[in-house]
Amino acid sequence: MNFLNEISHRYPDAISLAAGRPAEQFFQTDSIERYLRRFCLHLEQDLGYSEEEVRRTLFQYGRTKGIVHHLIAANLALDEGVFIDPESIVVTVGCQEAMYLVLRALRTAASDVLLTVAPTYVGLTGAARLVEMPVLPVASSRGGVDLDDLLRQIRQARAAGLRPRACYVMPDFANPSGVSMDLADRRRLLAIAAAEGILLLEDNPYGLFPHTDSQRQPTLKSLDEQRTVVYLGSFAKTAMPGARVGYVVADQSVVDSSGRTGLLADQLSKIKSMLTVNTSPIAQAVVGGKLLENGCSLLAATEGERAVYTDNMRVMVEGLAARFPDVEGGVGHNAPTGGFFVVVTVPFRVDDALLERSAADYGVLWTSMHHFYEPGMPVNAIRLSCSTVTPQQIETGLDRLARLINDQLRGR
Amino acid sequence: MNFLNEISHRYPDAISLAAGRPAEQFFQTDSIERYLRRFCLHLEQDLGYSEEEVRRTLFQYGRTKGIVHHLIAANLALDEGVFIDPESIVVTVGCQEAMYLVLRALRTAASDVLLTVAPTYVGLTGAARLVEMPVLPVASSRGGVDLDDLLRQIRQARAAGLRPRACYVMPDFANPSGVSMDLADRRRLLAIAAAEGILLLEDNPYGLFPHTDSQRQPTLKSLDEQRTVVYLGSFAKTAMPGARVGYVVADQSVVDSSGRTGLLADQLSKIKSMLTVNTSPIAQAVVGGKLLENGCSLLAATEGERAVYTDNMRVMVEGLAARFPDVEGGVGHNAPTGGFFVVVTVPFRVDDALLERSAADYGVLWTSMHHFYEPGMPVNAIRLSCSTVTPQQIETGLDRLARLINDQLRGR
Repeated sequence: MNFLNEISHRYPDAISLAAGRPAEQFFQTDSIERYLRRFCLHLEQDLGYSEEEVRRTLFQYGRTKGIVHHLIAANLALDEGVFIDPESIVVTVGCQEAMYLVLRALRTAASDVLLTVAPTYVGLTGAARLVEMPVLPVASSRGGVDLDDLLRQIRQARAAGLRPRACYVMPDFANPSGVSMDLADRRRLLAIAAAEGILLLEDNPYGLFPHTDSQRQPTLKSLDEQRTVVYLGSFAKTAMPGARVGYVVADQSVVDSSGRTGLLADQLSKIKSMLTVNTSPIAQAVVGGKLLENGCSLLAATEGERAVYTDNMRVMVEGLAARFPDVEGGVGHNAPTGGFFVVVTVPFRVDDALLERSAADYGVLWTSMHHFYEPGMPVNAIRLSCSTVTPQQIETGLDRLARLINDQLRGR
Repeated sequence: MNFLNEISHRYPDAISLAAGRPAEQFFQTDSIERYLRRFCLHLEQDLGYSEEEVRRTLFQYGRTKGIVHHLIAANLALDEGVFIDPESIVVTVGCQEAMYLVLRALRTAASDVLLTVAPTYVGLTGAARLVEMPVLPVASSRGGVDLDDLLRQIRQARAAGLRPRACYVMPDFANPSGVSMDLADRRRLLAIAAAEGILLLEDNPYGLFPHTDSQRQPTLKSLDEQRTVVYLGSFAKTAMPGARVGYVVADQSVVDSSGRTGLLADQLSKIKSMLTVNTSPIAQAVVGGKLLENGCSLLAATEGERAVYTDNMRVMVEGLAARFPDVEGGVGHNAPTGGFFVVVTVPFRVDDALLERSAADYGVLWTSMHHFYEPGMPVNAIRLSCSTVTPQQIETGLDRLARLINDQLRGR
């Protein structure tokens, strides 16, 4: 990520099909104040806070598990059909902190390991590195996760004396693959996790952006009957990254070091108190205000974004098909049904040196897929993102990318 | 801390001399919007940002090291006489994240250990627990740190095959002891650290609250000629805890795992990118706006708070002297020259069971000093805080505390 930032800085005229950031045309500076006021009104009118209590809530240290948990629970009920006790939610400093907290709680011994579908979101592998938890890759399939390989990896790990604690998965329009799991695979994944006694860490930043309603699948958490799923929530794409507000739903029962039974959420809260104390109540109030303004549903609130992403991805997928009609040439791409990302596969190795050439000589930025695999693994794929560009920029960017790829194919 | 919150919840009528929170009478809800606008104006007028760039700065993902680093550098120059390159600052999610980042960077092997003056702030020991870094206590003295013991501990640790990486210290009106180091001790501490090749982690949340100007000492960082000091900064007491904005100054040169030399700040930034990605720019803008509104100095901006803390501590220290005039009775207390905390020593063991009785039967809350020492160590001291109470509440609280102590002395 740092390398990408550095490159975009050095080549400001390059078109970026790299960044997985939300569209910016819906940001309004004065909405921050409006959201803040809306949340304060909620504290006063709905929760009966005095003026002094409102001030204290915004300015003072506060509840470690957060102050918008009840609104998040309402949001999950409305948008996801997930019904949970707000006490099982920990509001976090973005989804990144949520990942850290869960991994830190799960990593109790050197033999504890995490399974993740390769390619995997780099934020997850970063958090795993911080807690020194080994990550064992599981093969991906057209449907997202190769479930047979998942079972194989669990058993191999156990045979090697390791303890697989959880499997991380992004079932909807995954970063970086763009792929979604179908319903049958979701059910089978849940059954495997329950049978094997591992948790599923479900990360869902893009679920509200399917191209059509019928392409929206139920989350694992909504299908979770045995509390097998720890749900990692983000508002970065549905509200704004700048609030740095995310959350984790952890309604599992756990036994702590002193033998007491409690919620996993409370164990995560204890870790959070040693990491960031609590998530900024001012930032939470901004997100809370946006939730309140939209009756706690973000589905309708993000229709504009969804239309942009759908249009852009159509332009991107059709543009790739037009520029690389001949699959025999060895250049392929997928066609995700939602989200931000399309993967282009090529018959040559892709790395940051190629990206640097792409930026300098061709004027187009993308993300090398090798970042999402184990270090040293040769990878022949490029991730394109359609979220922060215009259709015209996509066309120009693809022209430039096609020139790069064709030059590579011709050995130049 | 959780236990304290729970107790104050169960006994809402108890007077709290426990919480180390800032005074609340200076919080104004509408100041948040004013600060936000002031910061946006700064981006436009001083830094030449377009409207779109301002929006992007607030709403989008942003610079990992933060967006108010230049204002913090200006603040340190004005208020502390510390002159550093803004690039050596990482803006963090409160000072707690700063502590975590530094310890995570320092803990590279199982033999790495941290030294801290006992009693130590619990946030530090919490962060050390998360990174599994052993904490070796150094004896305290009337002047803050027993420097001979520090040397002894460094040598003993080395003899035991351990590698002391740093010593954590709060030289000004420490939490929990209230004690400040004098200038001679500061200079000797710096010399020891430089000679022994360890870093000093200087934490300074209370430095702006001396009772008189002459009781203000230069920070270690301002005396630091050899980049021995990593400075941990907080805005919780000078702006507001609710922004969750702190920072670390890490201008040390370090060699990373790939052999490249760089700033420690950049290494911390990498860790931060895996922990919280970046500190909420909205929260940073609030703190930035407060800094800008005060010409980047928080000394004048916190004169009201300082007067409150000074008055309150006078009432508390005089009240203790009046209630326990006879040192022979075994009850003593210190008289800090600033900050929030006074320590009362008693001739009996203090723990959370006694606090619970104090809350239930006497109606007064305080903090047991055993939380600031190694687990299991018997401690005969109470921490009182004067920051969020009125003089009248202090008087009533001390009456209640005196009844508890006298009952304990009489064996009831």
